[in-house]
Amino acid sequence: MQLTYLLPAPMHATELGVAEMRRRAGLLAEWASAGTTVTVSAVDSGPASVESAFEEYLAIPAMGARLRSAENNGADATVVGCFGDPGLDGLREIATRPVVGPASAGMALAATLGHQFSVVTVTASVRPLLRRLAWETGVLGALGEVRAVELSVLEINNDHEAAHGALRAECARLLDTTDTDTIVLGCMSMGFLGAAERLTEELGAPVVNPVRAALHQAEALHRMGLAHSRRAYHRPPKLADGDSIAVLAHQADGPMEVTA
Amino acid sequence: MQLTYLLPAPMHATELGVAEMRRRAGLLAEWASAGTTVTVSAVDSGPASVESAFEEYLAIPAMGARLRSAENNGADATVVGCFGDPGLDGLREIATRPVVGPASAGMALAATLGHQFSVVTVTASVRPLLRRLAWETGVLGALGEVRAVELSVLEINNDHEAAHGALRAECARLLDTTDTDTIVLGCMSMGFLGAAERLTEELGAPVVNPVRAALHQAEALHRMGLAHSRRAYHRPPKLADGDSIAVLAHQADGPMEVTA
Amino acid sequence: MQLTYLLPAPMHATELGVAEMRRRAGLLAEWASAGTTVTVSAVDSGPASVESAFEEYLAIPAMGARLRSAENNGADATVVGCFGDPGLDGLREIATRPVVGPASAGMALAATLGHQFSVVTVTASVRPLLRRLAWETGVLGALGEVRAVELSVLEINNDHEAAHGALRAECARLLDTTDTDTIVLGCMSMGFLGAAERLTEELGAPVVNPVRAALHQAEALHRMGLAHSRRAYHRPPKLADGDSIAVLAHQADGPMEVTA
Amino acid sequence: MQLTYLLPAPMHATELGVAEMRRRAGLLAEWASAGTTVTVSAVDSGPASVESAFEEYLAIPAMGARLRSAENNGADATVVGCFGDPGLDGLREIATRPVVGPASAGMALAATLGHQFSVVTVTASVRPLLRRLAWETGVLGALGEVRAVELSVLEINNDHEAAHGALRAECARLLDTTDTDTIVLGCMSMGFLGAAERLTEELGAPVVNPVRAALHQAEALHRMGLAHSRRAYHRPPKLADGDSIAVLAHQADGPMEVTA
Amino acid sequence: MQLTYLLPAPMHATELGVAEMRRRAGLLAEWASAGTTVTVSAVDSGPASVESAFEEYLAIPAMGARLRSAENNGADATVVGCFGDPGLDGLREIATRPVVGPASAGMALAATLGHQFSVVTVTASVRPLLRRLAWETGVLGALGEVRAVELSVLEINNDHEAAHGALRAECARLLDTTDTDTIVLGCMSMGFLGAAERLTEELGAPVVNPVRAALHQAEALHRMGLAHSRRAYHRPPKLADGDSIAVLAHQADGPMEVTA
Amino acid sequence: MQLTYLLPAPMHATELGVAEMRRRAGLLAEWASAGTTVTVSAVDSGPASVESAFEEYLAIPAMGARLRSAENNGADATVVGCFGDPGLDGLREIATRPVVGPASAGMALAATLGHQFSVVTVTASVRPLLRRLAWETGVLGALGEVRAVELSVLEINNDHEAAHGALRAECARLLDTTDTDTIVLGCMSMGFLGAAERLTEELGAPVVNPVRAALHQAEALHRMGLAHSRRAYHRPPKLADGDSIAVLAHQADGPMEVTA
Repeated sequence: MQLTYLLPAPMHATELGVAEMRRRAGLLAEWASAGTTVTVSAVDSGPASVESAFEEYLAIPAMGARLRSAENNGADATVVGCFGDPGLDGLREIATRPVVGPASAGMALAATLGHQFSVVTVTASVRPLLRRLAWETGVLGALGEVRAVELSVLEINNDHEAAHGALRAECARLLDTTDTDTIVLGCMSMGFLGAAERLTEELGAPVVNPVRAALHQAEALHRMGLAHSRRAYHRPPKLADGDSIAVLAHQADGPMEVTA
Repeated sequence: MQLTYLLPAPMHATELGVAEMRRRAGLLAEWASAGTTVTVSAVDSGPASVESAFEEYLAIPAMGARLRSAENNGADATVVGCFGDPGLDGLREIATRPVVGPASAGMALAATLGHQFSVVTVTASVRPLLRRLAWETGVLGALGEVRAVELSVLEINNDHEAAHGALRAECARLLDTTDTDTIVLGCMSMGFLGAAERLTEELGAPVVNPVRAALHQAEALHRMGLAHSRRAYHRPPKLADGDSIAVLAHQADGPMEVTA
Repeated sequence: MQLTYLLPAPMHATELGVAEMRRRAGLLAEWASAGTTVTVSAVDSGPASVESAFEEYLAIPAMGARLRSAENNGADATVVGCFGDPGLDGLREIATRPVVGPASAGMALAATLGHQFSVVTVTASVRPLLRRLAWETGVLGALGEVRAVELSVLEINNDHEAAHGALRAECARLLDTTDTDTIVLGCMSMGFLGAAERLTEELGAPVVNPVRAALHQAEALHRMGLAHSRRAYHRPPKLADGDSIAVLAHQADGPMEVTA
Repeated sequence: MQLTYLLPAPMHATELGVAEMRRRAGLLAEWASAGTTVTVSAVDSGPASVESAFEEYLAIPAMGARLRSAENNGADATVVGCFGDPGLDGLREIATRPVVGPASAGMALAATLGHQFSVVTVTASVRPLLRRLAWETGVLGALGEVRAVELSVLEINNDHEAAHGALRAECARLLDTTDTDTIVLGCMSMGFLGAAERLTEELGAPVVNPVRAALHQAEALHRMGLAHSRRAYHRPPKLADGDSIAVLAHQADGPMEVTA
Repeated sequence: MQLTYLLPAPMHATELGVAEMRRRAGLLAEWASAGTTVTVSAVDSGPASVESAFEEYLAIPAMGARLRSAENNGADATVVGCFGDPGLDGLREIATRPVVGPASAGMALAATLGHQFSVVTVTASVRPLLRRLAWETGVLGALGEVRAVELSVLEINNDHEAAHGALRAECARLLDTTDTDTIVLGCMSMGFLGAAERLTEELGAPVVNPVRAALHQAEALHRMGLAHSRRAYHRPPKLADGDSIAVLAHQADGPMEVTA
Repeated sequence: MQLTYLLPAPMHATELGVAEMRRRAGLLAEWASAGTTVTVSAVDSGPASVESAFEEYLAIPAMGARLRSAENNGADATVVGCFGDPGLDGLREIATRPVVGPASAGMALAATLGHQFSVVTVTASVRPLLRRLAWETGVLGALGEVRAVELSVLEINNDHEAAHGALRAECARLLDTTDTDTIVLGCMSMGFLGAAERLTEELGAPVVNPVRAALHQAEALHRMGLAHSRRAYHRPPKLADGDSIAVLAHQADGPMEVTA
């Protein structure tokens, strides 16, 4: 199967560059099952990293265009490349094949491994977003805490070992002082660090890598002939088959203001 | 106070045109308390009407720009001009003064008027969005049903009387056959129809006009010196004071794909 | 509009006296919108302050009589003058125009300003009552903590500055150590202290004055032509139009006991 | 043990009269375990039957006085004689021995007998009260429906057979068309009809008589040396030991109004 | 009435022996109401004490056989002799008369005594089981904490005084530092220690003995002519009246494995 | 990897026989990813099909023994071969490698595909069990209905086409008349019928085959180096490494009864 990993950021235009895109594609290919080909696709405009709700919103229109392009080029499934699952409901509306969100896939998997899972992410400011994602996935009842190591995504990518230490400390604290029995790493950069695999061993409790949870869910859906439900994610009425999604938006010459 | 009513659509470039913007500004001014000035502001690009999650996402980046412009021009508060509260969390992050969502304001008001409220909206496809908004507002426990009259926003604007009849039938059905005791109209076009006021009288039960609920909440917050909580809607770290929100997004020459 | 603020206590017969009633009427008039006239009405018998459920119950029959009298004298809306919303459901049953509870109005407003609000009140013994009010309003899902400063209402009225310091300390603790992003003051005496306004400024987070939240909700309902739902708060079958509420209760010469 | 059954109504001054009080005392004595003496105690003023929240409130102050009197005369436990559990929290505050509510006791028992119980009561207008009681008891999660036969308490007492037929029809409907597996009769008059016992046999599903559920819970608490928790129902601070509860309320010469 | 107390363990073959069975039968008889005869019945095979979910499962098939035997010998009701309520749903399916679980009965009683109860048990490993029982009973909303004293059942039986001290310390901590107002002892050995009665006195808050809560619920159900609902606990279709439960299981000569 | 599919029934000793075990092993092997070897393992005693809670309990002790044997023979993961996930928590306690429940895996997957999933199973009597499993998995919030086609497992295996028709009718009804957008087949025999695959195509909505959902979750866990959390499923204290699970149960010469 062909799998597209869809980055909400123009990573090739940031400090991380195409090299990091290649590294991630390589890891995805290594983690994938036999027969899965992986393409990492980046938008032409968007936030360098998602640290707020508004940045998520900035990314989504361009992600929609890349998704349609990936499907036109034969992608059998798409994984959203950000743990905030930015625009997952909207992307699923305009997709014709499975779109998988790593928060959704990672938390649903974690829910089955114990009684209570917690999420460790980069910055506390995304906590409300992550709680909402747990609610939307339907697993809020199994979510314990959302904790943050307060490192920027860039810091994580720049000093892997320091980031790993901060992660381990927070995960250990959760396991020792709360009812948490399972952990989900709440950031794709953490996932590509290999942190989950090391932490699972170091801590003796399952630490879910959301990249791999999403990858394997996409593979499973493809093998099973399933996709997200069209009855949950309706095709926009204005969008006829074959239309570019540009048809959904009107263009004016400029904005307009009227004062009563 | 100066209040901006922020349209997610370039209404001036659609069939409804500037005339409808003027009509809405006039109604808002009529409904407002003494001392409130109302400006209706429309984006330069976006969906003609919001009928899907993806169309909400398309609207938000331009809404962010209009919001910042409104605040720079002295707006004391902004009301989001769509019942889906598109981008409310993101807009609040980049705002410096209150941003009010009509779903949030209308449902919170309805929750206080009885034991169970229901929402009547235009199309069933937005039901999951509205349930999520009720959850985000914190009033899901008081929400009964989300029902749709299955009229497009354009149909509502074109034949007010037929739309009113469809609304009345659905509202009556809710009051007669469910535990619903209070209704919220789930569409701003319905609000500007004057439907809520007629239905309240015809049905003998409160029918909340979300336009006015949001307007009065904005006025109340302004009088009380309150705004949404900065601890809930953090300022994006990449955004320094004075920055244009354009700084939040990287621009690349084009998209990029890497296949492993 | 004419608004009645209905005190559950015979404040004129307590240490606070008519002077405090006048001070409160003055503040309400100052906070109200143009065109709102405020009357503060006190019962002839009841608890000096509400510090238990039983004291709430003692107050309600006399409040019912004052409410009917206020409506007969032209009150367009009534605000219950105690944060416990004593008897709100019962008062709404016998009212013909809007009755607003400050807990209900204050918590519903707070729910829209962030993700989680907490209440700071005078005594921990009323915590179960306040949690029940949050449930009845439909916003329990958004309620974080109910904390108490353990000052009596009389102490608050006697040493405003000490009370303010205690409040600030508790509010700061909530914002610093919990997920609370918004606070509601859970006592009308606190509201008439001007504490919410100072704390909002001092703490950089919205602190809702329940007096003003209720006042503005009453004004909004009046402007919108809405009231609480008659389908939620049914008219007592024994009460015909025009009846005094005394008709609801039988009088016997004395109690009676029968032992089997 | 001495058990007081506390009527919220001056039944001796109503059409039912002392004869009905004697009949009820007789049934309670018959149902009670060996060694239990039952006194039925009626207030001197209150609603003939509780058909609204406001009528509940009217009953409570006098119930408080009767409760204190019963305890002074040696009552080991008190059962509230109305399915609305009027004033249960307040009565528990001023009591020194167990006070049992029939809704609370009946619903808690029903919750243990299956997966979902429903309540059948006299009038739909008390549905919100009963749902609140289920929430306060902590068993709302197990509550299915609250249904009403729409007979007045007086009609039930006047034509037992017709009332039984209406009850049976509604209970059968619940068992046949919903997930209900257990039923609680939501009215004490129904309980004293012997309806629960006949329906249990006729329908092949447990139908709980709230009178007996409360009676047996009071007996069990007494045998076990338990009472409601003082940490949940705090003694009103103004009430010193030995005080009459009259001390809780201030008396003024009359009401007072101040207009700003 | 004849009541069977059904031990999941072959206590007579353990260190505690028949003497402890006699001691427990004696206490049950002492606690029971006049007219109740108590038989303590032990299985022929099972765990010495239930410290894990798997041990619960090991006990249930033999408990089913003992239950059928008890009913055949005239038992009017059966109390499950383990706080985990092992197999309660299954046992109820095959029973013809009431089967009462002590966790279910104890927690439902505790829920009516205050706003929040907590459970103190022997080992933290059974916490998820106890939370599930609270959910199944329908009272999870009223459950605060599940705490463990980390003593084995054998240690409790061997040094009553030390066990009591550990219990008191944990109960006091709950009452002092959480919202807990009522406690349930989560272990039958604790119940037979007389700990609940002493702790209620020492701590001034109700501490429920699950043995007695179950005993009195069984008595109440018998007096009221009620049992668990057959519509909740269906008779296994394969089980005709009169059948031994052995008919439910097929026997093979040995296991079988097939590899594709 | 080596995967064991663990049947709770001695299928080889039932009408279905070894042939059906072979057919199922063949389908599992066909559905599995490259590199997965599948063994179907049946217990030596248990119910022919699970149609009640008590039958589940009968199966679990023998399943524990087969699980330990499978792990000793090199199984990398075990899938419980019954949609009731019988004994999942207990089996996980005694396992050293992943144990996957098909209800848990199937419902968690379904939760990610839409907003509300429903389960279609064989008999309504297992509905409470399935709701409990949804709660335990943490996805009860996303569960709509549990519906039954009222066919026995044997009927399903005997007339595949009639069973498929009944399934399709019930699934269509759910999609047409409720908020269900995704369906999980609640029976492994249904899964081995190939029904999910046909229904997904026929109905245009995802119908999850629980067999394959569990299979792919087991594969994913193995690839990711994860297992269920030892902190959620504690090793029974009585079980030392290397012990047979027989050590967990005491054996007596026979049962014992003591009457006080």
